[in-house]
Amino acid sequence: MAIVVTNIERTSAALVAGLAEFGVATLHEAQGRRGLLASYLRPIYRPIHAAGTAVTCELLPGDNWMLHVAVEQCRAGDILVAAPTSPCQDGHFGELLATSLKARGVRGVVIDSGVRDTAVLTAMAFPVWSKAVSAQGTVKETLGNVNTPLVCAGALVRPGDVIVGDDDGVVVVRREEAEATLGQARAREANEREKRARLAAGELGLDIYRMRERLEAKGLRFVRHEDAQD
Amino acid sequence: MAIVVTNIERTSAALVAGLAEFGVATLHEAQGRRGLLASYLRPIYRPIHAAGTAVTCELLPGDNWMLHVAVEQCRAGDILVAAPTSPCQDGHFGELLATSLKARGVRGVVIDSGVRDTAVLTAMAFPVWSKAVSAQGTVKETLGNVNTPLVCAGALVRPGDVIVGDDDGVVVVRREEAEATLGQARAREANEREKRARLAAGELGLDIYRMRERLEAKGLRFVRHEDAQD
Amino acid sequence: MAIVVTNIERTSAALVAGLAEFGVATLHEAQGRRGLLASYLRPIYRPIHAAGTAVTCELLPGDNWMLHVAVEQCRAGDILVAAPTSPCQDGHFGELLATSLKARGVRGVVIDSGVRDTAVLTAMAFPVWSKAVSAQGTVKETLGNVNTPLVCAGALVRPGDVIVGDDDGVVVVRREEAEATLGQARAREANEREKRARLAAGELGLDIYRMRERLEAKGLRFVRHEDAQD
Amino acid sequence: MAIVVTNIERTSAALVAGLAEFGVATLHEAQGRRGLLASYLRPIYRPIHAAGTAVTCELLPGDNWMLHVAVEQCRAGDILVAAPTSPCQDGHFGELLATSLKARGVRGVVIDSGVRDTAVLTAMAFPVWSKAVSAQGTVKETLGNVNTPLVCAGALVRPGDVIVGDDDGVVVVRREEAEATLGQARAREANEREKRARLAAGELGLDIYRMRERLEAKGLRFVRHEDAQD
Amino acid sequence: MAIVVTNIERTSAALVAGLAEFGVATLHEAQGRRGLLASYLRPIYRPIHAAGTAVTCELLPGDNWMLHVAVEQCRAGDILVAAPTSPCQDGHFGELLATSLKARGVRGVVIDSGVRDTAVLTAMAFPVWSKAVSAQGTVKETLGNVNTPLVCAGALVRPGDVIVGDDDGVVVVRREEAEATLGQARAREANEREKRARLAAGELGLDIYRMRERLEAKGLRFVRHEDAQD
Amino acid sequence: MAIVVTNIERTSAALVAGLAEFGVATLHEAQGRRGLLASYLRPIYRPIHAAGTAVTCELLPGDNWMLHVAVEQCRAGDILVAAPTSPCQDGHFGELLATSLKARGVRGVVIDSGVRDTAVLTAMAFPVWSKAVSAQGTVKETLGNVNTPLVCAGALVRPGDVIVGDDDGVVVVRREEAEATLGQARAREANEREKRARLAAGELGLDIYRMRERLEAKGLRFVRHEDAQD
Repeated sequence: MAIVVTNIERTSAALVAGLAEFGVATLHEAQGRRGLLASYLRPIYRPIHAAGTAVTCELLPGDNWMLHVAVEQCRAGDILVAAPTSPCQDGHFGELLATSLKARGVRGVVIDSGVRDTAVLTAMAFPVWSKAVSAQGTVKETLGNVNTPLVCAGALVRPGDVIVGDDDGVVVVRREEAEATLGQARAREANEREKRARLAAGELGLDIYRMRERLEAKGLRFVRHEDAQD
Repeated sequence: MAIVVTNIERTSAALVAGLAEFGVATLHEAQGRRGLLASYLRPIYRPIHAAGTAVTCELLPGDNWMLHVAVEQCRAGDILVAAPTSPCQDGHFGELLATSLKARGVRGVVIDSGVRDTAVLTAMAFPVWSKAVSAQGTVKETLGNVNTPLVCAGALVRPGDVIVGDDDGVVVVRREEAEATLGQARAREANEREKRARLAAGELGLDIYRMRERLEAKGLRFVRHEDAQD
Repeated sequence: MAIVVTNIERTSAALVAGLAEFGVATLHEAQGRRGLLASYLRPIYRPIHAAGTAVTCELLPGDNWMLHVAVEQCRAGDILVAAPTSPCQDGHFGELLATSLKARGVRGVVIDSGVRDTAVLTAMAFPVWSKAVSAQGTVKETLGNVNTPLVCAGALVRPGDVIVGDDDGVVVVRREEAEATLGQARAREANEREKRARLAAGELGLDIYRMRERLEAKGLRFVRHEDAQD
Repeated sequence: MAIVVTNIERTSAALVAGLAEFGVATLHEAQGRRGLLASYLRPIYRPIHAAGTAVTCELLPGDNWMLHVAVEQCRAGDILVAAPTSPCQDGHFGELLATSLKARGVRGVVIDSGVRDTAVLTAMAFPVWSKAVSAQGTVKETLGNVNTPLVCAGALVRPGDVIVGDDDGVVVVRREEAEATLGQARAREANEREKRARLAAGELGLDIYRMRERLEAKGLRFVRHEDAQD
Repeated sequence: MAIVVTNIERTSAALVAGLAEFGVATLHEAQGRRGLLASYLRPIYRPIHAAGTAVTCELLPGDNWMLHVAVEQCRAGDILVAAPTSPCQDGHFGELLATSLKARGVRGVVIDSGVRDTAVLTAMAFPVWSKAVSAQGTVKETLGNVNTPLVCAGALVRPGDVIVGDDDGVVVVRREEAEATLGQARAREANEREKRARLAAGELGLDIYRMRERLEAKGLRFVRHEDAQD
Repeated sequence: MAIVVTNIERTSAALVAGLAEFGVATLHEAQGRRGLLASYLRPIYRPIHAAGTAVTCELLPGDNWMLHVAVEQCRAGDILVAAPTSPCQDGHFGELLATSLKARGVRGVVIDSGVRDTAVLTAMAFPVWSKAVSAQGTVKETLGNVNTPLVCAGALVRPGDVIVGDDDGVVVVRREEAEATLGQARAREANEREKRARLAAGELGLDIYRMRERLEAKGLRFVRHEDAQD
């Protein structure tokens, strides 16, 4: 009953390269505050960064068999995104799989479960975001789907979508929205650059963003400490 | 219905400088094991240290508007302490606000919610303790109080109190107890210095603290392994 | 009613030295995927490594008295393993106890509760795995057992067993299984060395482990993207 | 930027009625162990049961405005499925909204956040599954989508899909798979009926499911207690 | 260093009786969405209700000695509010203490730790809200304060404040705000009564609360399913 | 590598019957505050009670095969105690297994994972304590041990030990300590009976337990509200 979808359509390398210049927070904002994976996914080392196209892999709890199947579907520029069919924190992923993925040019792993061999993975500088660090071994008994749409850490990831991860976490950009998101990210970054300079020079956000009038309209009052009760 | 209290009374810079020489554990002990914020507040990098006077900011979940209001109330030597009115982990705080605070001489942020842009904040060496790292963006719609007493991570923080944070977490010292706490911390540190030397030389705590008699009185028995059942 | 068992039998130093050459994941696998402590135990710094013989210590929540008793039972090559009788995250362990343990040649601490003074402990390079970092102070009022079998983070640890910790977590190897486990670990490592080389050279795990036939027998199907519905 | 999709296609009432005869566990099995919402969603009373067609509603944390918008899109036989754009436990839903939904013939609510007025909702016998019970009030400030595909408690729910909830939790059945799932559920139930009778009569699952041979082949050994070491 | 404050000022019985007519959600709203204790406090049975004046009690983790001290400070109409100085879930409270409190006319207990003997307490119909149900016993060794301001489950509670608990959780109303809160609660209830009737009659909240214009101004668009992409 | 130990020695039915007359809290106290399973194990209905001899079963995450093996080892008067080799919340146990166990006279199940079919199990009045309620199905692929010592929810359980569960949770009494524990429980109960009567009559625990002197010696001070600063 399980399938492996081959020959998936990936977001173009040029678009991925463009998106890779931005952080997770910027990309999440650029697509209307969507696409963020849950914040319990943490990187195994810092600073960290990776951007690539998603190959998705469904795992069974305590069983990492399908990761071996998924490796074959990965090619240079991909990021492997894996999630168990029910909550798990076992060490589904470790050094040997990372060695295999690295040999194929894969840029990182996002896994809604545990990872092990973290000292070696860190030394390899192979980027991994996971729910837990756990040495717990797994079996190879049960099938799951590879390259079908997957909910990973609360976000829907489809094969070929763009995955970007950094110190803040992981975001997915849908393949068909990659170009628009890149445009939005550039616009946002340009806008923030100017704001950053003004803020660094001591100007207040209250003034830059013209917030004072709206705050007053909503009823915000300023009271001197000596006049405040309590 | 929301207010911003201006002109708050701050603990003197001299007292803050004195307290800044001690770690969180020592200050917590010095004031009778009080004032510790919950241990789920973690620093975004290590080692880390900051000490300053509290400016408090109430946040709404998913809304960071009041942080912009609070910035204006901060001055050199302050630490901004923010907490949502209900549990939240969104990225209420990030690079732009940090840039603004840094320009004002603010020494750090303690936030019972999420923080983002952690790679940049780390590079800026701007100290932040938070409940989560999350890129999740927030809106600017609803008012909250600034510089009113606030429960942050389980501890009551009042504007002008002293906040000290390090690798272990964050402690608050009440303004009116700052001087006494400083005295206690110095006494404790002096006492520990001597103990540390004796322990490093191989003396046992059982002897230094004269615990043997009390342990025996409570009924502690020593049994050789070969005589122990089980 | 509490006892301290003295004169415990420890796994031989030679066996510990042998096991110390392997990571936690390998040792856990080598003994049939057993002996792993829960993954919520995290090291206070990374990279980290320690191997030694267990001295066990039962703690009361909010009370670290028995750690002082346990120190006396420790000798060079030991690792102190402590767990509270009910869940707790207080700072049961810190700099002074570490100073004392280090003076005795103890190699590390595994504690199913909190640790404090983490900046100093990190500077001392004294290995600690804990459930939490917390500056919370504790009292010295109530007795517990030292060197009796203990469930720590979900695993049974008996005095004299081998404890190995690294970036991935902590594993216990039973004293009577230490020799067999060492043999298995060596065999496993040898086997993995060859696999690692082949994987690094681009060979697929599917082929190395001869998985294709069994996957097919279980019913795995490969479908081209353009032929997949959904 | 937010939209409300009107005129959605719903699974037929007949299919929903058919599926409503089965429990969540059976339906989850019937569709290949898929579609289960996370087990942290708990019913506000027990026993509980509801089955209907999904109207989906995206919520902002601390903001329940869109629920009022979603009510208008509900009609008799629907179940309202709501999830916040970032984790939240506030009391997004309560008595007044339930009164409105009940008046429209809505059969229940599934919400990946908090619910309040639970005593009244229980008295009304209005089924709700939620992540938390919380009296925390919410604002009405920010837009979200209604009737777009939504990840709720880790499962993808699309408008018009079938939602079934009982004491065990909540499952979603995709609209296009509803008929096949109903067939599978009936087959499974028939099969289990016979098994249940045999098990109740004292026959062993080992024999009914013919497991002995496979267990032996995998290496399971039976050892008399007096012959077992340990 | 610990004190017991005697002779505390309590909110008047008349005000408490007035507030007791409202649910937790209503009172929380009536005072501007403040005063709610964290939603992890759950009642030991349902339906449940209690209202009274707070006697506060600081606990040490794993130590319930001060509850015995606090009992003496309780009188008819009080609710005992207890919180540990660091997180704990032990069974600090049980049948014997409840028997004693009941004999004194105390109306319930709110405890940010564990409770035991829940079957008996349920049979006694003695209301308790707690963080956990745990049979774990506690010692009687260390002092804490009674009737000093206390942070319990994230909310500041001062002796004599009003505590109201129901199926939704627990709220604190400050003594000096009790009268105003009662007025607001009555106004709110009157307003909701009319709304409830209109909603029950099928009118939409969108119309009753006149939301349509503001939703449109914010940019909400209605799209027919057949015109929506995705 | 997995074994099933047959012919285990069980605590006598008479001792189990004696212990069954006491609650979990009492038994836990009677054996020196030991043997309590973690409080996250919750009963599926209330009130609830069961007492029996342990048959232990190791589970793999997401795999309930060994429960079928364990059933055969159960006989009238047993309680089945199961725990996964790594954390899991899947629905390992449900109606069919309960039917089989009930047919054999088994008195209940304690499982450090999930349970499903809770409505039916409740109707059957079959006692279950679990970590979660989850409909998640499991596979039958991997072996584990039956009737070997097992850590379940943080407590060591050995085959034949006594298990008692009630509304407060679950406790294990070691087979060789069952008689002594029964004696202690009876003594404790007798002692509490008298205390309960005195407390119900209004006498204070402070006086019954003669605590006043020790409290004063520790330094507790009583301060009238009007004399207390703060």
